[in-house]
Amino acid sequence: MKVIVKKYGGTSVSSVTKIKNIAKKVVEDATRNSIVVVLSAMGKTTDQLVSLANRCTKNPDMRDYDLLVSSGEQVSISLLSMSIKDLGRDSVAYTGWQAGIRTNNSHSSARIIDINAKKIKKDLKENKIVIVAGFQGINNGSITTLGRGGSDTSAVAIAAALKAAECQIFTDVDGVYTTDPRVCSKAKKVDQMTYEEMLEMSGLGSKVLQLRSVEFASKYNVPVRVMHAHNSGSGTLIKKEEKSVEDALITGIAFTKDESEIMIRGVKDSPGIAASILGPIGDADIEVDMIVQNVGSDGLADFTFTVSRKDFNKAIQVIEKNKKKMNFSDVSATKNIVKVSLIGVGMRSHAGIAGQMFSCLARKKINIRMISTSEIKISVVIDQKNLENAVKALHNEFKLERK
Amino acid sequence: MKVIVKKYGGTSVSSVTKIKNIAKKVVEDATRNSIVVVLSAMGKTTDQLVSLANRCTKNPDMRDYDLLVSSGEQVSISLLSMSIKDLGRDSVAYTGWQAGIRTNNSHSSARIIDINAKKIKKDLKENKIVIVAGFQGINNGSITTLGRGGSDTSAVAIAAALKAAECQIFTDVDGVYTTDPRVCSKAKKVDQMTYEEMLEMSGLGSKVLQLRSVEFASKYNVPVRVMHAHNSGSGTLIKKEEKSVEDALITGIAFTKDESEIMIRGVKDSPGIAASILGPIGDADIEVDMIVQNVGSDGLADFTFTVSRKDFNKAIQVIEKNKKKMNFSDVSATKNIVKVSLIGVGMRSHAGIAGQMFSCLARKKINIRMISTSEIKISVVIDQKNLENAVKALHNEFKLERK
Repeated sequence: MKVIVKKYGGTSVSSVTKIKNIAKKVVEDATRNSIVVVLSAMGKTTDQLVSLANRCTKNPDMRDYDLLVSSGEQVSISLLSMSIKDLGRDSVAYTGWQAGIRTNNSHSSARIIDINAKKIKKDLKENKIVIVAGFQGINNGSITTLGRGGSDTSAVAIAAALKAAECQIFTDVDGVYTTDPRVCSKAKKVDQMTYEEMLEMSGLGSKVLQLRSVEFASKYNVPVRVMHAHNSGSGTLIKKEEKSVEDALITGIAFTKDESEIMIRGVKDSPGIAASILGPIGDADIEVDMIVQNVGSDGLADFTFTVSRKDFNKAIQVIEKNKKKMNFSDVSATKNIVKVSLIGVGMRSHAGIAGQMFSCLARKKINIRMISTSEIKISVVIDQKNLENAVKALHNEFKLERK
Repeated sequence: MKVIVKKYGGTSVSSVTKIKNIAKKVVEDATRNSIVVVLSAMGKTTDQLVSLANRCTKNPDMRDYDLLVSSGEQVSISLLSMSIKDLGRDSVAYTGWQAGIRTNNSHSSARIIDINAKKIKKDLKENKIVIVAGFQGINNGSITTLGRGGSDTSAVAIAAALKAAECQIFTDVDGVYTTDPRVCSKAKKVDQMTYEEMLEMSGLGSKVLQLRSVEFASKYNVPVRVMHAHNSGSGTLIKKEEKSVEDALITGIAFTKDESEIMIRGVKDSPGIAASILGPIGDADIEVDMIVQNVGSDGLADFTFTVSRKDFNKAIQVIEKNKKKMNFSDVSATKNIVKVSLIGVGMRSHAGIAGQMFSCLARKKINIRMISTSEIKISVVIDQKNLENAVKALHNEFKLERK
């Protein structure tokens, strides 16, 4: 029998009724496959625990914090185990430490070091359904947590340790879409994509899968399938690149709305100038996304970059404070911009995608403020008012509705 | 510094405010003593978890059940640890398994086998306040629980392992009283009593301390002090018997209201007759408390016993069903009885206590239905309507208000 790891998130286990529903599905699938289920805490449990912590102290010790929040999954796994046994199948539930998930000691954002899957393998041989608490592990006798969304990583890591045929991540969407259906009604579910494409998609706000879990899956070559927790359908399969799938030129269009743009004009173009501007920004814990530098004929440069909108005011303050050191003539900034990205491994072997993208936007009279490219992605920064138009036009241009 | 173990129950930790209050008291005491705190789950948490379990299955697997309910203490210990650190003291919180509490594998009613207190000793040396989850332990990698009220036993066991100077059980009463103040307003707090006396008192419904924890304390000679969680006062110290305290003749008067009496008349008095009556009762899982057998001159016996009121109807059914086998002429039964017990180690060396008790009740015209005695206890069964009169009269007779 094939080993399948199934991960259900907080919304899918937010009530006893939903947990019993999952038990039914799992027991049904267990007639065909060996099943390991990875669970998050029920619904808003983790948030509630965090709010209790915040009422005790402004600055909780992270070992205490992990001990606290890890109790949430302990509840959901035992309830699922009871519900499965109630249907007549044998099961066993493990916390992170019981399942042998060893992490480093970065409490509240720990990384998995290894998994001793001996117990789980033995249980699967004995035809038990194994249930593991996601999001948590152990370091030197102390409970650790992997940080928000860590259950995805737990599931992929367990799948890797078991050499599972597939790691199924159940969520509240049918799969990964070519773009956000709320912005472009022609958006279609993608049946299959590569790890790299998924990394670009999820890094840009298609928050279906935790970024780190995709990296993990890519590293250990674990096929991951994103599926709807309650609807039927085959979801989106994320796996390593195959030569044969090169006909899919573009996989999807991702965008982020929470960007803002800062342009510093009249900077003297000399070595180290980028560092003198970005250094203080980085010191203030502000993450810079895109960076563009233009040098004019007068030897002065325009230096443009984007930061998250929540950091916008802070960034402007840092710049004003360091005006002398940065030595520029003028700064202009806008919050009303968005980033739109075309993603697809097909770009690697097809020239002209960027040109096609830019002309498409030009025909729609959409001005491009910044451009950045990577091997499988082309991103442009445009005015927020053009977002919907741009996404729809590109979706049409690259025929994503026919996928 | 002396090691003091402090146990707080569910009501004392039912809110963040109460937890922060305990943190303050503990930090204050930690300037004088080395402190280990044992906690129950917050308020009604355990009940809520059990009700979730009952919605998943009628018959929960006990390993799953223990995994579920043990999450409750994990929450309270981490919140207390955060609150203590917020006051500037260092602390460390341990679940049962982290604290090295090894139990047998009787899930949901496990018994502690041993405690490896190495970690706790090291922490105390490093001047940390140690917080341990009560009610739970580990057996062969699986989380176990000690059953309701098990936190008292956890605290006493940890105190024994650390050879602590005292184990303080904080509760919602000032200590153990000579009798129930709601029945006799002259009831007084007892300053000191022996383990045996406490066993008789708590076994009879003075539900201040879990019975098993007193047995444990007696076995390992751990001084236990029952105190109010929020009021001041020195509570009741429970320790081993000392020759010098023999002047305290009677320690207290305990009573139980949930008794019922069944009298089977005209039983042929032959060997094995008690077994033929009590056998079917026991088979029906009904616990029998007092048993009295009178043989008349006609060679027929009256066989009287008490059972808990909740088992009354069931017991009557069992008797009717086995009438032939039991071979009796008549059965009479009453629910309206109570048991009143005089308790005190002083009885051992003082004759005449029983006589004094019976004459006191006779003077008040209170009829005694049944009598049973042990080394440090005399119990009588009387009509429920006489309960208050009897308790008040005995409290006066043995001058308990002067304690």
